[in-house]
Amino acid sequence: MDKRIKKSIETLKIISEPCEFGTQRQSYTEAYKEGAVYVKRTMEEYGLNVHVDGIGNVTGTLIGTKPDLPKIISGSHLDTVLCAGAFDGIAGVVCAMEVAKLIVDSNNPLRHTYQVIGMVGEEGTRFGKALLGSQFIAGIYSEKQLHKFRGSEDNKTMYDAMIEYGLSGDISNVSKKDEKVKAFIEIHGEQGPVLEKEQKMIGVVESIVGLSWLKISVIGQTNHSGTVPMDYRKDAAIGAYNLILNMNEYVCTNYTGKATITEGKIQLSPNSLNSIPGYCDFTLDIRSGEEEIIVDILNKLDEFKNEVKRKCRVEIVVDEQTRKKPILMDKHLKNILDEQCAKMGYASMRINSGAGHDSMVFAEMWKTAMIFLATKNGISHNPDEWIDYKDMVAGAKVLYELIRKLDEGD
Amino acid sequence: MDKRIKKSIETLKIISEPCEFGTQRQSYTEAYKEGAVYVKRTMEEYGLNVHVDGIGNVTGTLIGTKPDLPKIISGSHLDTVLCAGAFDGIAGVVCAMEVAKLIVDSNNPLRHTYQVIGMVGEEGTRFGKALLGSQFIAGIYSEKQLHKFRGSEDNKTMYDAMIEYGLSGDISNVSKKDEKVKAFIEIHGEQGPVLEKEQKMIGVVESIVGLSWLKISVIGQTNHSGTVPMDYRKDAAIGAYNLILNMNEYVCTNYTGKATITEGKIQLSPNSLNSIPGYCDFTLDIRSGEEEIIVDILNKLDEFKNEVKRKCRVEIVVDEQTRKKPILMDKHLKNILDEQCAKMGYASMRINSGAGHDSMVFAEMWKTAMIFLATKNGISHNPDEWIDYKDMVAGAKVLYELIRKLDEGD
Repeated sequence: MDKRIKKSIETLKIISEPCEFGTQRQSYTEAYKEGAVYVKRTMEEYGLNVHVDGIGNVTGTLIGTKPDLPKIISGSHLDTVLCAGAFDGIAGVVCAMEVAKLIVDSNNPLRHTYQVIGMVGEEGTRFGKALLGSQFIAGIYSEKQLHKFRGSEDNKTMYDAMIEYGLSGDISNVSKKDEKVKAFIEIHGEQGPVLEKEQKMIGVVESIVGLSWLKISVIGQTNHSGTVPMDYRKDAAIGAYNLILNMNEYVCTNYTGKATITEGKIQLSPNSLNSIPGYCDFTLDIRSGEEEIIVDILNKLDEFKNEVKRKCRVEIVVDEQTRKKPILMDKHLKNILDEQCAKMGYASMRINSGAGHDSMVFAEMWKTAMIFLATKNGISHNPDEWIDYKDMVAGAKVLYELIRKLDEGD
Repeated sequence: MDKRIKKSIETLKIISEPCEFGTQRQSYTEAYKEGAVYVKRTMEEYGLNVHVDGIGNVTGTLIGTKPDLPKIISGSHLDTVLCAGAFDGIAGVVCAMEVAKLIVDSNNPLRHTYQVIGMVGEEGTRFGKALLGSQFIAGIYSEKQLHKFRGSEDNKTMYDAMIEYGLSGDISNVSKKDEKVKAFIEIHGEQGPVLEKEQKMIGVVESIVGLSWLKISVIGQTNHSGTVPMDYRKDAAIGAYNLILNMNEYVCTNYTGKATITEGKIQLSPNSLNSIPGYCDFTLDIRSGEEEIIVDILNKLDEFKNEVKRKCRVEIVVDEQTRKKPILMDKHLKNILDEQCAKMGYASMRINSGAGHDSMVFAEMWKTAMIFLATKNGISHNPDEWIDYKDMVAGAKVLYELIRKLDEGD
């Protein structure tokens, strides 16, 4: 199986738009089409019936012996970010195909119908909107969005890009919201360093983290750096740094491994060597798998804000710009995965997903789980991204056993 | 005297290049010329002999009864920053002229020759180089620089700007480095909040601070804000903020009123909401009137740097880009000024100058002192700059008494 996986990953790696070192298959490009054709051909070789839906998702089906039972689906996305690595998205599609192959080769067909899906537009790269394939499947998006979403580069509507790509423009066959689905399971690289550092092969995703994105403005007083003594200053940057370090200390002390906060962007004004900064804007990105932790961190922000206002003689304005609740993966599926890994001798752990995935969308309608594979050095969205083929084999085998288990019931 | 001062300040305020609310007289502009002509006419009205030198400094002279004695000189600069207030520079020229008027009106001429000087190009605004007038007078700059320094806006050489302005291009009469000068005294606004907060009219400048300007680069590792737990991060910005707050705490605890440090400029990379900053560059501006304090702060920086490298798992590179030693004002002159303020009932204090002035240049060759006047709200380089006329009167009277005292000896 590892040879087949290696061949698929290496073949798909070079099916790419021009891009130095990395691989790049934005939705509806020639490279995307070539990648989809490769996946389609492989599915056919493995014995699946293949269907390409109205927005370019590729689905392979193994009809179960009891076709009225709900489906079991696995897959991930076919598209990539700009100059990406060879694994993000496609690894989950390749593993799901390998599971189909195992089922076919076992000569013991499933009772449930099993589908492998390779989705379009999970990355926001081409149209500035992420999770496209899954949101059309879930019926959250419809024709309206096809004419609304436009390419960030070429300003072409999604509809025009689809027509140009060779699709009909009819998306009536895309939504699966009225279908009966027993479980959706996605295999994906962790895209972080935890599994590797903890020496685990497999992560059983606990939840996809919720987040709060805030813009924080600190207002002090601009002045000459030479003429204003330290104790008279209203240095907006010093106010910001106090708030940031208080918050970091609090989160590190109380929530390491359970929440992250990041202050990724900062802007001082006037931002000049010999001026005391009068204004400082920075962003705060709070993430956690537990909503109560996000709420506690936000409360703490409010408390520290008032302390820093007094201590640093500044004003502070906090503006929450985005808020998303954590999405829990299905408890039953997680438990089976834990047991299965233990039984098969694969070192595993529960882990949160700090990034978004198509599974976020499906978790709102179906029982959903994610299997994370260790990502070398935690590097992702980068040509250096690497997942060991033996870990992909392990992931596929765990998924196969999970599906066998699910297939026992109705 | 306050009416004459008010008239001069208000007249010169409206002699300006176009500039909303503020006043603006960059060197060698029409507004500069008109301002210089007003100063020249006022000097003549007051009974001084006026001479404009080769680079546009305006000098008014009251010949002493013993013309062989060294000169006593007072003055400041005629030029302004962009969209400036009505006091910076010109207040010192107006006060020095008022002292001449007091001498003339006393019918008791000085033994020493007294000169009032209004200098060109103290601000770096037009040519990107500051302290031009004083450095040509000191003989530090010569013809070479006239052809080298260029306007930041028009790229014209200083020589071409001077010729266009109407000067001859001959600067052989500018340098005073071979002249005997008993003292140079400059009156200037404080440009900071200390005198006002301490309820003092007059500041006797202890020294013009020395400085160290550094660029500090912190190198961590860029990563996805969602996927990397707090304890695995190498956040360059967090490293920088730790270093900055450690330094601030140290300077505030040990050197408030004696040193300032400012981190005016910062740049993160990639500076994006959902990325852990991998790089952070910031500037550090250290100033003190005492060289040993600057050295101690730099040593402390080195110590904190090593602590933060370990604690935050980052690399830190410190690059000192500018270093200037503090310049002490003349002890004897400072003592007379202290005594004189006390005698005349003007609340005064010793104070450091955190900004540079022409007096820095003259202090290297002549006994030099500076008299600071309280600046409302510490605001300077701003149309809202304000010095009370009664404080300017007090400054001129203290200067007059100092000169009378100096005139007693040879």
